[in-house]
Amino acid sequence: MQIKLFFSPSSPYVRKCLVVAAEVGLVDLIELLPGSPHPVTRDQSIVVINPLGKIPTLITEDGQSLYDSRVICEYLNSLGQGNLIPTENSLRWNALTLQSLADGILDAALLVRYETNVRPNSLRWPDWINGKLDAIHTSLKYLNQHPKVFEQNFHLGLLAIGCALWYLDLRYPELDWRKKYPELAQASVSVLNRPSMQRSWTIPA
Amino acid sequence: MQIKLFFSPSSPYVRKCLVVAAEVGLVDLIELLPGSPHPVTRDQSIVVINPLGKIPTLITEDGQSLYDSRVICEYLNSLGQGNLIPTENSLRWNALTLQSLADGILDAALLVRYETNVRPNSLRWPDWINGKLDAIHTSLKYLNQHPKVFEQNFHLGLLAIGCALWYLDLRYPELDWRKKYPELAQASVSVLNRPSMQRSWTIPA
Repeated sequence: MQIKLFFSPSSPYVRKCLVVAAEVGLVDLIELLPGSPHPVTRDQSIVVINPLGKIPTLITEDGQSLYDSRVICEYLNSLGQGNLIPTENSLRWNALTLQSLADGILDAALLVRYETNVRPNSLRWPDWINGKLDAIHTSLKYLNQHPKVFEQNFHLGLLAIGCALWYLDLRYPELDWRKKYPELAQASVSVLNRPSMQRSWTIPA
Repeated sequence: MQIKLFFSPSSPYVRKCLVVAAEVGLVDLIELLPGSPHPVTRDQSIVVINPLGKIPTLITEDGQSLYDSRVICEYLNSLGQGNLIPTENSLRWNALTLQSLADGILDAALLVRYETNVRPNSLRWPDWINGKLDAIHTSLKYLNQHPKVFEQNFHLGLLAIGCALWYLDLRYPELDWRKKYPELAQASVSVLNRPSMQRSWTIPA
């Protein structure tokens, strides 16, 4: 069995999928393919299997093309018979909403990055950047006020929050979220220290 | 039982949730609350229950706050004991990936709208707009080349595609997608003509 995954080491959405794969013991079955998605100059090698041209995109052993990260995470959890997505209703909606919160933080962070690193300098709009940064901060503040979230059994929502915090460390160290949100910093240590979260991935040479 | 849903009549993501509610017979249980999300001037009445400040956000009868549209759609389908999300693996991944495609079309369409209707004129970037429009077109082209997708039993993926096409009709009539993608136009009629898709919603005065 071989599964292919279009990959970039800095994509937090790809990382979500790989952390799930590590949690459920499927890492060795996944072949990483290089992907260079870009919001303006689109990667046509991805577009042919995912018309949105985004990563992660996964190709199953049957050749079925799956996207986006939420679908791939659920697929990998199912394939590896993991228990990262609670089945009991209230726990399930809570875990999935926490994943939405994490993805929303990442959406905002990526839009800021496109604005500050891709868009020509003369066309940048400070109000847009501030709106997105504010969404990141209100989300981190919510987590800071609800540290008990991290006391739940590990699930996809916490995994996604971990990947969002990983991405903030990678791209926005100046945000200094640990200093601004000390309760969150303390509560999230157990998630960020999981072996699956600590792991790094590269494409074999 | 009363469920609350933050609502805007022009939000395609809110529409997804309401179409699901109509399909599974839950419309009368949902109270619509006005929401005015905005990427720059954020709606604080939403932020207090969803730190991302986005709609749709749903409040269950137990007071649990659920977002985004994918979570709410799955919740409503479960609550109404609907069968909009296939349980058999391959069908399930296919339906959920189709939902991702629809959401991706909508993400691109909304980013174009923010660029052309919210951002100051002098700060607009044609390459960004073109990249997003290209993602919409490659997605519609894919559907045009795979009209058999619409022959499946109706599910959440087709429902989401219907909402994406509804939004293109609402905001981008000049795209004239029916003319450019005639196979898609013909194949999608049965989805777009469903009573749940034809229905309109407003907040009671």
